[in-house]
Amino acid sequence: MKRIKAILEYDGSAYHGFQIQKNAVTIQEKLETSIENLIGEKASIIAAGRTDAGVHAAGQVIAFDTSSSIPPDKWKFALNSILPPDIRVVSSCKAPANFHPRFDAVDKRYIYLIHRKNSGKVFYSRYAYCDTEALEVKLMQQACRLLLGRHNFKSFCASGSSVKTYDRNIKECKLEEKGPFIRLDITADGFLYNMVRIIVGTLLEVGRLTYGPEHITDIILAQDRTQAGQTAPPQGLYLYSVNYG
Amino acid sequence: MKRIKAILEYDGSAYHGFQIQKNAVTIQEKLETSIENLIGEKASIIAAGRTDAGVHAAGQVIAFDTSSSIPPDKWKFALNSILPPDIRVVSSCKAPANFHPRFDAVDKRYIYLIHRKNSGKVFYSRYAYCDTEALEVKLMQQACRLLLGRHNFKSFCASGSSVKTYDRNIKECKLEEKGPFIRLDITADGFLYNMVRIIVGTLLEVGRLTYGPEHITDIILAQDRTQAGQTAPPQGLYLYSVNYG
Repeated sequence: MKRIKAILEYDGSAYHGFQIQKNAVTIQEKLETSIENLIGEKASIIAAGRTDAGVHAAGQVIAFDTSSSIPPDKWKFALNSILPPDIRVVSSCKAPANFHPRFDAVDKRYIYLIHRKNSGKVFYSRYAYCDTEALEVKLMQQACRLLLGRHNFKSFCASGSSVKTYDRNIKECKLEEKGPFIRLDITADGFLYNMVRIIVGTLLEVGRLTYGPEHITDIILAQDRTQAGQTAPPQGLYLYSVNYG
Repeated sequence: MKRIKAILEYDGSAYHGFQIQKNAVTIQEKLETSIENLIGEKASIIAAGRTDAGVHAAGQVIAFDTSSSIPPDKWKFALNSILPPDIRVVSSCKAPANFHPRFDAVDKRYIYLIHRKNSGKVFYSRYAYCDTEALEVKLMQQACRLLLGRHNFKSFCASGSSVKTYDRNIKECKLEEKGPFIRLDITADGFLYNMVRIIVGTLLEVGRLTYGPEHITDIILAQDRTQAGQTAPPQGLYLYSVNYG
């Protein structure tokens, strides 16, 4: 047996998220079925991030064990020959037998796109959150700076999800206007469930002047999901890359 | 009866082109069905450009006659309430009774996108021609300049299509590298069938060094479709705007 590591990109529009589930098509299912069809052997895929329905990936990392004789770097071509066109393997290689895409990640980077023009919506509605309301971007940028660092982010975690600790360290949190988009670029040592989308929903409230950017600190301290903004829609979110140090 | 003019954008991926046909879903059909469902009255739509299957529009112009009391500028909202999300009306207004979107056009502008990176293909395969082969962009730009002006473009017209004259005046033809894209921006007083896509296919041959840019002039003079390059795929093409002077 050897462990294969692969980097994937996918358009999440047609999938009910990464993780296998009954009665719904998922990325994991497509990958596991493809491997089985390819080598007649079942494999269990582990991913760095279990992206939700409609969420995209530019640099998802997966691993699986196989006894197949396919050379590790050729798994890219083998899988791409059989996967649907909206899931692509960017690269594949051999990984140490104990490599774990999620637990070994040093940090993960997500991008969130908000499309700000009325025109172009037909092309971007599956790839960005389309929202043309007035937003004070400078205030949103101030709020981003207050999110930086190690905090208890329970207020930014979907209620009902249980984790050992809500402490996460946001290493980068940058919001920029880029052409017709507002683009959030956020890197942390890990993310709680729905954390990026709740951060975006909260930044939108700041942009709308519902509260000032300094209120972000109060929201963090409250450790209460109801204090933060709504969960922003999935289609603007991209798992951009995973760093293993 | 009054004539309504509307500007549309659409993602052509799911349609068999603009023009109505049997046993295939088209943009025209979606528009005409929407109007009929809205006001219980049939309407015939005329478009500035009869885009092919998979071709997109950012500024398609249509016109139709109606006896409905819907104010001309409200047709935008009325149609958007009933059209599928991949077809959107950008604006609507009253037009002179003799306005013809195709015959009255002074010039039309098309954009063609070639995506040049291996990564990102999952997001761009329906919105650009994805092609990572080596291309000499400077030579392609030289070739663009030789296409400018009034010429007989029979070599750049799909064979079998009959028109009164193959003379067209290319007013702008600019090829640029933009991020991961090569983008062709072309404006003419009119285009022959498949003309932009055959121009792109020919520019690709220049980029591949199959022949030098100066050979473009020979191809024009030949008035022979077989002398030009292949018809480039539809998904890179956008009807960008129509100018009525």
